[in-house]
Amino acid sequence: MTKKVLIVGGVAGGASAAARLRRLDEDAEIILFERGEYISFANCGLPYYLGGVIKERENLLVQTVQGMQERFNVDIRIKSEVTKILRETKEVEVLSQGKTYRESYDYLVLSPGADPILPPIPGIQREGIYTLRNMADVDRIKSLLEEKKPKRAAVVGGGYVGIEMAENLKHAGLDVVLIEAAEQVMGPLDVEMARIVEKELMDNGIRLVLQDAVQRFQGEREIEIILGSGKQEQVDMVIMAAGVRPETKLAKEAGLEIGERGGIRVDEHLRTSDPAIYAVGDAIEVKDRISGEYAIIPLAGPANKQGRIVANNICGGTDQYLGSLGTSIIKVFHVTAAAAGNNEKILRRAGIPYLKSFTHSGSHAGYYPGAFILTIKLLFSPEDGKILGAQIVGREGVDKRIDVLATAIKHGLTVYDLEELELAYAPPYSSAKDPVNMAGFTAANILKGDVKILHWEDLQSLNRAEYVILDVRTKEEYENGSFEGSIHLPVDNIRQRLDEIPKDKKIIIYCKVGLRGYIAYRILAQRGYDVYNLSGGYEIYLAEEY
Amino acid sequence: MTKKVLIVGGVAGGASAAARLRRLDEDAEIILFERGEYISFANCGLPYYLGGVIKERENLLVQTVQGMQERFNVDIRIKSEVTKILRETKEVEVLSQGKTYRESYDYLVLSPGADPILPPIPGIQREGIYTLRNMADVDRIKSLLEEKKPKRAAVVGGGYVGIEMAENLKHAGLDVVLIEAAEQVMGPLDVEMARIVEKELMDNGIRLVLQDAVQRFQGEREIEIILGSGKQEQVDMVIMAAGVRPETKLAKEAGLEIGERGGIRVDEHLRTSDPAIYAVGDAIEVKDRISGEYAIIPLAGPANKQGRIVANNICGGTDQYLGSLGTSIIKVFHVTAAAAGNNEKILRRAGIPYLKSFTHSGSHAGYYPGAFILTIKLLFSPEDGKILGAQIVGREGVDKRIDVLATAIKHGLTVYDLEELELAYAPPYSSAKDPVNMAGFTAANILKGDVKILHWEDLQSLNRAEYVILDVRTKEEYENGSFEGSIHLPVDNIRQRLDEIPKDKKIIIYCKVGLRGYIAYRILAQRGYDVYNLSGGYEIYLAEEY
Ligand SMILES: Cc1cc2nc3c(=O)[nH]c(=O)nc-3n(C[C@H](O)[C@H](O)[C@H](O)COP(=O)(O)OP(=O)(O)OC[C@H]3O[C@@H](n4cnc5c(N)ncnc54)[C@H](O)[C@@H]3O)c2cc1C
Ligand SMILES: Cc1cc2nc3c(=O)[nH]c(=O)nc-3n(C[C@H](O)[C@H](O)[C@H](O)COP(=O)(O)OP(=O)(O)OC[C@H]3O[C@@H](n4cnc5c(N)ncnc54)[C@H](O)[C@@H]3O)c2cc1C
Ligand SMILES: CC(C)(COP(=O)(O)OP(=O)(O)OC[C@H]1O[C@@H](n2cnc3c(N)ncnc32)[C@H](O)[C@@H]1OP(=O)(O)O)[C@@H](O)C(=O)NCCC(=O)NCCS
Ligand SMILES: CC(C)(COP(=O)(O)OP(=O)(O)OC[C@H]1O[C@@H](n2cnc3c(N)ncnc32)[C@H](O)[C@@H]1OP(=O)(O)O)[C@@H](O)C(=O)NCCC(=O)NCCS
Repeated sequence: MTKKVLIVGGVAGGASAAARLRRLDEDAEIILFERGEYISFANCGLPYYLGGVIKERENLLVQTVQGMQERFNVDIRIKSEVTKILRETKEVEVLSQGKTYRESYDYLVLSPGADPILPPIPGIQREGIYTLRNMADVDRIKSLLEEKKPKRAAVVGGGYVGIEMAENLKHAGLDVVLIEAAEQVMGPLDVEMARIVEKELMDNGIRLVLQDAVQRFQGEREIEIILGSGKQEQVDMVIMAAGVRPETKLAKEAGLEIGERGGIRVDEHLRTSDPAIYAVGDAIEVKDRISGEYAIIPLAGPANKQGRIVANNICGGTDQYLGSLGTSIIKVFHVTAAAAGNNEKILRRAGIPYLKSFTHSGSHAGYYPGAFILTIKLLFSPEDGKILGAQIVGREGVDKRIDVLATAIKHGLTVYDLEELELAYAPPYSSAKDPVNMAGFTAANILKGDVKILHWEDLQSLNRAEYVILDVRTKEEYENGSFEGSIHLPVDNIRQRLDEIPKDKKIIIYCKVGLRGYIAYRILAQRGYDVYNLSGGYEIYLAEEY
Repeated sequence: MTKKVLIVGGVAGGASAAARLRRLDEDAEIILFERGEYISFANCGLPYYLGGVIKERENLLVQTVQGMQERFNVDIRIKSEVTKILRETKEVEVLSQGKTYRESYDYLVLSPGADPILPPIPGIQREGIYTLRNMADVDRIKSLLEEKKPKRAAVVGGGYVGIEMAENLKHAGLDVVLIEAAEQVMGPLDVEMARIVEKELMDNGIRLVLQDAVQRFQGEREIEIILGSGKQEQVDMVIMAAGVRPETKLAKEAGLEIGERGGIRVDEHLRTSDPAIYAVGDAIEVKDRISGEYAIIPLAGPANKQGRIVANNICGGTDQYLGSLGTSIIKVFHVTAAAAGNNEKILRRAGIPYLKSFTHSGSHAGYYPGAFILTIKLLFSPEDGKILGAQIVGREGVDKRIDVLATAIKHGLTVYDLEELELAYAPPYSSAKDPVNMAGFTAANILKGDVKILHWEDLQSLNRAEYVILDVRTKEEYENGSFEGSIHLPVDNIRQRLDEIPKDKKIIIYCKVGLRGYIAYRILAQRGYDVYNLSGGYEIYLAEEY
């Protein structure tokens, strides 16, 4: 008996499920409904097409209706919106070209994606304000750019899409202001890491407005943006990139369980509360692999893989999707920022104890040209050193290190395991101790108590009379800017000048990145001083302060 | 009681041990002996300095004698050769400036490295023939290049150092011939992967002589190289890069156990057969993590990490070095080649059963500019899919994927685990299904029997009358070159033209990389045909044939 599978949504999750279904079952009847005009397009490429980085529109179409039909013998129905699920009779209602019809199913796969959030801001419906999700959106914005030649743009929201749009509108020659209501851009990063991204945005001419929310859009021809602070911005166009909301209307109306985060609730086989209905992608909630909490992870990798898993399960498999690390990455002009696992915000909310360390290492051997410093933040368990999260920002080699760390986190590795990883070294690619090894060494030293550290924010809770701050960098570095009230004593002179260091106070050491501070720490700690090394050194402080 | 530690060798393993020892123990007496003039130099950077990629000689000196003394309070004695170990009295004999003296130790660390192999070829001692291992070597070659301005060079040996030297002599403007006695360059790769490297060498103007050994060096001013085949080469200089041999003279004479591969034998704590003597780096044998055999892994990453482990153990630790994957990488003009774990040659020798798969994937999303195909070869266990080895060649993103795979191999992951890895995706960095995921899918499909594959070499053992070869690529691709005797039937037309395919023969399918072949396979297999997909497609065939 052949099975009949209906799929709602023809892009990442839906098209992947269709292709895999066909490979597994040549006889299945597969119908894919897509309310838009295109399937299988590259959502993730849309900003780059607007910025002119991707030159050809057709490059965005990874697969066409015709191509997909020919290759996978799937009945593809575009401009066809599924408007209702009739679970009793196992049918859906489809609206196409003004007409409604029903189609029955044995299995139904929901991959309807997510909708850009449009906050209820007065004036938000006016002309010139756009969201970016699909081909229709991109076409609209492209023709605006080409025909009206706007000069000034505001992007509202400093997440992935907002930042990519800010960069690409800049590439397209516009003057861009990025407005973010929170105190930082890039939610997956903690604030001190986000600061590096913010600096890169500003260095590349993006005006950044933080902690200020849009109150109103007004104005006649140009758009006046009134912010909570009272400040105003005049622009010719606005991109709203304030996040996405799982598209759950269909599921909700059909009485499928919706989770606490507002996504469709699925079990580990990606089945909804109705065993004949599966759901994948941006529309669902998944378990966060670290915190165990439900989370919405609106990313293409998970969507594609979930589509494949569902196809397997419809064909008799018992594949599980055991949750997500939310591994993500973004290019911000010359910088790359990436994260995997939980950040401090999530760990705190989930009540999971953690330690953290910062390291700054060269993307490859310093003596080979073209190396850049990358900053790694590692969050790990104080009990066993299990890695809970990683964040990396830098110019080169960030993608490599986050993928190694994502692999490590996925498989429950500890910071001790990172010390031992045998990664590929030749001068153009890495150092004999890769930045990931270095992060491991540093974290393991903290965990074992071989070094006691402080973070900048800890200083505020200390009594200023009880400690001295020791700057162990070179004279030049010290004179170029140092922490207020710090004493200068280069690491290489400490042994000779021990008597200058008070024994009755806490000694807080810092250098540029933490390495020399650590060496100084080891000398002083073994001489009986009560020492602390400032994790991440002056660089992290500078980053936090800009 | 302070301990006294002597270290023989002041570069990767030795200097790392010294630095770590000092950090752990401020009171230890540490003396480091180096027979050369420099410590802590970047061996791995030497070829690039000769090629002018690294501009400043001083950049090769990662740490100087003075710098190291100041920072780590280590007694560094250069131009001091340890000539004898007196185990009974726990002393070494040191030759310095023509004088010999003794120094006692509590612990002795041997990190003497390895010596370039100089095969007993007649004429090899003549002028103009060089090896490259240290600063003295590089200075000699540099002044030859600058003063004599040689025009033609031969590099003998197609391993890492040989290839890096060939590339860099080319950069320096010379005409270069690379001579390798084996049938392929780059031993860590299997032959079909090495072919891609060889092609890159030739495309960049290196003349390549394979399977031909040097018989004699002769000639007056210019060097005439007489090869086994009778061919001759006339050059102005020769670099001998025929591999290295562990430097074991000291250890041997002291009666320390030497292993079957000719390196110093150590236990898992890196202790030699004498408990007061540790050894690390190029001089030792380690366990191969996959095959369990002893192996010589002359690489900087292991040497540095072993130095650190030994320091830990001398200071009371019980750290283990559980063997090496031999993870390695090399830049060959625009291509990167990398390997981790075992290759087919090693697996066969060790009698370990394996399956293999080839995939070719874009380094990042095809619609974002600058993506290049990378070829991944995966070797895995037919029983449980455990990954045994990986080899990757391509222009971009090779280093990232090998590091993910090295992490996976180290921790015993299977090809099924690769399917699920959640790697970072944005268009400039990867695809929603990363090449590592793809390699996992493809290997898992083979393992589960969802596709039966053949490798090109298998064809030779088949009876030509029993199979037909089906080319499922496009008409243009087929006409541009196809496998002899193949029938053309594009994948997208198979369902319509099933009747053209004989049911009484084996059907061997191929496409460019294996993906369309796999799709065609799934259609035909489900229709009852006896089908095989050629793993790696026409690309691997082309690579093997050039
Ligand atoms: C500008 C942009 C940049 C991005 N960049 C990245 C990135 O760099 N990395 C990354 O991992 N992810 C990125 N994403 C996210 C990624 O595109 C999504 O996570 C992924 O596409 C989700 O797949 P999906 O199948 O759940 O939803 P979608 O791909 O959105 O597909 C859902 C489809 O379902 C259709 N649909 C919805 N309801 C119905 C209905 N009732 N009937 C018929 N059809 C319906 C919709 O029209 C839509 O086409 C980006 C997204 C955007 C918008
Ligand atoms: C040209 C070149 C390129 C390379 N490229 C790479 C690469 O890209 N990636 C990689 O991982 N590895 C590379 N390597 C290998 C790497 O440099 C070695 O694996 C590493 O240096 C080994 O460290 P070691 O401490 O064992 O030996 P070494 O670093 O060689 O140090 C040994 C030192 O001991 C001294 N010594 C020996 N005997 C005595 C004695 N009796 N008394 C006093 N001193 C003594 C020697 O003079 C020498 O300086 C390269 C090597 C070379 C030569
Ligand atoms: C285009 C699309 C329909 C393709 O789906 P797909 O066929 O499942 O995916 P791919 O083309 O990547 O091929 C993967 C398959 O080829 C196989 N494969 C890949 N390389 C192979 C090789 N060299 N040899 C054999 N098989 C290979 C894989 O095993 C996998 O098959 P499986 O799932 O049956 O195991 C889907 O990816 C899509 O719609 N993408 C665009 C939308 C999108 O993802 N947007 C968001 C990101 S921008
Ligand atoms: C120069 C050399 C002596 C340095 O040795 P080293 O001090 O052990 O190594 P590094 O400078 O990389 O520093 C590593 C140490 O800094 C610590 N560290 C690194 N970044 C840190 C940070 N941000 N905060 C705190 N500590 C940090 C690490 O934990 C590690 O200390 P540990 O081993 O006590 O845990 C040695 O690497 C060497 O000789 N290299 C050149 C020779 C060579 O390797 N050649 C072959 C390759 S070309």
